[in-house]
Amino acid sequence: MTAPTRETLETFANPHPQRHYEIKTVCPEFTSVCPITGQPDFGTLTITYVPDQLCFELKSLKFYLQQYRNHGAFYEDVTNRILDDLVAVTQPRRMSIIADFTPRGGIRTSVTVTYPE
Amino acid sequence: MTAPTRETLETFANPHPQRHYEIKTVCPEFTSVCPITGQPDFGTLTITYVPDQLCFELKSLKFYLQQYRNHGAFYEDVTNRILDDLVAVTQPRRMSIIADFTPRGGIRTSVTVTYPE
Amino acid sequence: MTAPTRETLETFANPHPQRHYEIKTVCPEFTSVCPITGQPDFGTLTITYVPDQLCFELKSLKFYLQQYRNHGAFYEDVTNRILDDLVAVTQPRRMSIIADFTPRGGIRTSVTVTYPE
Amino acid sequence: MTAPTRETLETFANPHPQRHYEIKTVCPEFTSVCPITGQPDFGTLTITYVPDQLCFELKSLKFYLQQYRNHGAFYEDVTNRILDDLVAVTQPRRMSIIADFTPRGGIRTSVTVTYPE
Amino acid sequence: MTAPTRETLETFANPHPQRHYEIKTVCPEFTSVCPITGQPDFGTLTITYVPDQLCFELKSLKFYLQQYRNHGAFYEDVTNRILDDLVAVTQPRRMSIIADFTPRGGIRTSVTVTYPE
Amino acid sequence: MTAPTRETLETFANPHPQRHYEIKTVCPEFTSVCPITGQPDFGTLTITYVPDQLCFELKSLKFYLQQYRNHGAFYEDVTNRILDDLVAVTQPRRMSIIADFTPRGGIRTSVTVTYPE
Amino acid sequence: MTAPTRETLETFANPHPQRHYEIKTVCPEFTSVCPITGQPDFGTLTITYVPDQLCFELKSLKFYLQQYRNHGAFYEDVTNRILDDLVAVTQPRRMSIIADFTPRGGIRTSVTVTYPE
Amino acid sequence: MTAPTRETLETFANPHPQRHYEIKTVCPEFTSVCPITGQPDFGTLTITYVPDQLCFELKSLKFYLQQYRNHGAFYEDVTNRILDDLVAVTQPRRMSIIADFTPRGGIRTSVTVTYPE
Amino acid sequence: MTAPTRETLETFANPHPQRHYEIKTVCPEFTSVCPITGQPDFGTLTITYVPDQLCFELKSLKFYLQQYRNHGAFYEDVTNRILDDLVAVTQPRRMSIIADFTPRGGIRTSVTVTYPE
Amino acid sequence: MTAPTRETLETFANPHPQRHYEIKTVCPEFTSVCPITGQPDFGTLTITYVPDQLCFELKSLKFYLQQYRNHGAFYEDVTNRILDDLVAVTQPRRMSIIADFTPRGGIRTSVTVTYPE
Repeated sequence: MTAPTRETLETFANPHPQRHYEIKTVCPEFTSVCPITGQPDFGTLTITYVPDQLCFELKSLKFYLQQYRNHGAFYEDVTNRILDDLVAVTQPRRMSIIADFTPRGGIRTSVTVTYPE
Repeated sequence: MTAPTRETLETFANPHPQRHYEIKTVCPEFTSVCPITGQPDFGTLTITYVPDQLCFELKSLKFYLQQYRNHGAFYEDVTNRILDDLVAVTQPRRMSIIADFTPRGGIRTSVTVTYPE
Repeated sequence: MTAPTRETLETFANPHPQRHYEIKTVCPEFTSVCPITGQPDFGTLTITYVPDQLCFELKSLKFYLQQYRNHGAFYEDVTNRILDDLVAVTQPRRMSIIADFTPRGGIRTSVTVTYPE
Repeated sequence: MTAPTRETLETFANPHPQRHYEIKTVCPEFTSVCPITGQPDFGTLTITYVPDQLCFELKSLKFYLQQYRNHGAFYEDVTNRILDDLVAVTQPRRMSIIADFTPRGGIRTSVTVTYPE
Repeated sequence: MTAPTRETLETFANPHPQRHYEIKTVCPEFTSVCPITGQPDFGTLTITYVPDQLCFELKSLKFYLQQYRNHGAFYEDVTNRILDDLVAVTQPRRMSIIADFTPRGGIRTSVTVTYPE
Repeated sequence: MTAPTRETLETFANPHPQRHYEIKTVCPEFTSVCPITGQPDFGTLTITYVPDQLCFELKSLKFYLQQYRNHGAFYEDVTNRILDDLVAVTQPRRMSIIADFTPRGGIRTSVTVTYPE
Repeated sequence: MTAPTRETLETFANPHPQRHYEIKTVCPEFTSVCPITGQPDFGTLTITYVPDQLCFELKSLKFYLQQYRNHGAFYEDVTNRILDDLVAVTQPRRMSIIADFTPRGGIRTSVTVTYPE
Repeated sequence: MTAPTRETLETFANPHPQRHYEIKTVCPEFTSVCPITGQPDFGTLTITYVPDQLCFELKSLKFYLQQYRNHGAFYEDVTNRILDDLVAVTQPRRMSIIADFTPRGGIRTSVTVTYPE
Repeated sequence: MTAPTRETLETFANPHPQRHYEIKTVCPEFTSVCPITGQPDFGTLTITYVPDQLCFELKSLKFYLQQYRNHGAFYEDVTNRILDDLVAVTQPRRMSIIADFTPRGGIRTSVTVTYPE
Repeated sequence: MTAPTRETLETFANPHPQRHYEIKTVCPEFTSVCPITGQPDFGTLTITYVPDQLCFELKSLKFYLQQYRNHGAFYEDVTNRILDDLVAVTQPRRMSIIADFTPRGGIRTSVTVTYPE
């Protein structure tokens, strides 16, 4: 299986680029695989951004995230990588991702990344 | 079917224009149609504003929003357009709209627009 | 039926006037009448204030609000009027009222007023 | 606009017809129009059935229900009619529909129909 | 003010009298007056019935219940009386009313009546 | 302090003795004292009954329950005793009490008693 | 560390043995150790019983359950054992235990045992 | 990828086979693939059974369910198949599975299967 | 009965006085008596403070608050007095108390006091 | 039993040290022992930090916290100590811990510590 690639992501022209406004997209069906144990991980991604010239298209976002289904990735790493990909493709004014993962061993973890910092 | 028009919106004189106060109106029964697939979309609009000389009348707001029932519109576009119409008609001191749409393909989206930015 | 009057409101001396502290009173049983249709409206008033020399007495507040039971009043107007009356009687350091009304025609509205602005 | 027709509904062969088991489908995006006022109604349909030889296909159910979007229908009537259509097409061992409509005039209503009674 | 009368209630012909089905109507905006203290009471009525030849019309139900707004009535009495009126007018196969009143003196009460017993 | 006595309880004539109906009264402000440690206990009593000729009056119930405020009583004993008193005074067709006490030592307890068994 | 023993449990005479009534005790702070991995498990025990001549004393129940803190035990086994011990000591008319354990590996389990079956 | 096989499931001897008791296991991280679209589905399986001589081991259940991760299966079919496999391996006195799937196209479905019927 | 006294409160040395950190204590079982009607009041106290050299001991706080059980006190007064006592005894860097009282006459009140202001 | 030691904690290199981002870890299964009574305490730890060069490894965090299972520690002390250990090992840009303990004697307490202050 090939690694996830940002080329799956498609964009469309922001219909109101002159206004500073916010889009929030919640993806509760994210799943990837632990690179050490091979066991699946599950989480909810909340992506919030202020678009500049481009918005990401939702169906292509779904396909982009599905690339992680059988891909090995640590929590911290996958969250940062998804932010990097979405920023590279949409060049937003700002963007943040909150990734909430389900409990493992009685402990649950979330990771919050922001662009620009 | 004709396109939505702001002429449906009616106003009344703000009874306390000398005070800076806030009105929040929640409309959980908003529905429009996806311009690509023709499938219906559903969402909740939360409109918050500080009136200046005019308030919008609630029954006319309901009729205004019902114009979108069979109208094709993308999430980002329809939210910005409704803000433009309400601002044009009531000339508020400030106004924001949060539009929360129901999930599609396991993903849900909300759009937040504000006047003035 | 006579119009609501602030003379129903009674006060008592703030027992700790030297301290800046806050009192919040929630009244979920407010009801008035729509001046156009004659239909009853229902709402919850949340009154928050920092008393100066006087606090309002709760039983008299209840009687004051009951005056609106068969009184015709628009949402925006009644909220502003109650604030005016409570400010006039207690002369607080600051006060706000949030009035949340139940849905009508699938739309619900709340009004927030503050003194001083 | 033509009236809703059960011919939109498609079925597939029950993969386990020898077992008595239950399928529950919840449709929170049902909307129709009041035949008197022309105002839209909104509701959630919960369809529960024990299939015999046929199951209804979910995508065709969605299209079937969308036929009511601009169709005038009373609560009691539309619920009974949908049951009649689904029973006619799938010939289930038993089926029930609970239709919960959103409030109108401060009152909300639900209708529960069952086959066979 | 005149006493509540069942003549306000209107009916329409049950569109599916051959089927045994259930209608539930929830009225969260019921209010009456305590006959001893004159203080308002508030409650939620849940009316569930299996219609025979007649259904009650919702707008007339709203007007019927509004007759209690300034009428003195004890919890137990008003609940029984409303059941008697609705049974007399619609002659249902069965009907029940649950009346949940808001707390007084730290105690809250509900009354459940059923026809036939 | 004298022991609690059922003589505090007052009744009124059931206004609809010919109908078998149910009254539920929830008292979330019950408090008594542990007879061993002297520490206060807190609980919620839910009293449900079908009246015969008599109903208990709510204000007198409040005063009756306040008698336990400084009275030493075990959970099991106090619940049974209150049932005995309410049954003796109102002679209901049936009655049950559920007493839910707040946690002590990380453990919480509820007692359910019924008449007749 | 010695194994858990029912001798820790203390009882007191049921104050109302002539009545058939129910006592429910919820213990959300149960913890034991997995006998294979040595890792701690956590759960909530809900014990419901109809006492005959004896009730268990709550403080002794707490000490009895604390014996499992460093004791290795499988879910199914520990739940059955606690029921056996409580039945042996109190000889109830009937008793059930529901043990809800916290998730492990994304899966959570509860065990329900009843006496007599 | 090979098809799911019940040979992954492991069992252990029921430690209390003489008692009729119930084990409930909730698996909120089930995922499979739609055999038509290739899109992932997500659901929660609730497995409840009364063991006879054998219990299923939880870790092997997790591995068994993970076999469906990239396996194409319809809702109705996969739920029936998992019941068949668990019944074949553990030979329980009775067992049921409730499978709640996440919404697709604004519609969500659950399937309930039981052994013996 | 003697009046509440702060001498009941005990302290212990803050184990980390060099760090600015916060302790929040929630007391949902507070009860006092209305000085006018003699009726009991109930509330939840939330005490938040940054300790300096001293922390209050929790068991002594419980005994301190129990002194109000049969003591007459208005909402505003008792909240201010408890703050005064806790500040006098522990000399914190800052402290606040939120007192939420249960509804009376359909109205509920909370009082928030802070030191220093 | 030996005292808890930070040597149990393991770290891994922050995969994105150039970005200022936040990791939140919630541990609802923390338990320790009261140093005075020997009774177990239970709590939920919420650890939030911005990593610099190092992140703590979750499995080692679990083992580190399990060291407190039979260790005597006061609420305030244990929360400060865990912060000190995690800061010493990971040298974060900032870190906070909120420790919420279950109720004792009807009172519950939480402690919040932050680095740097």
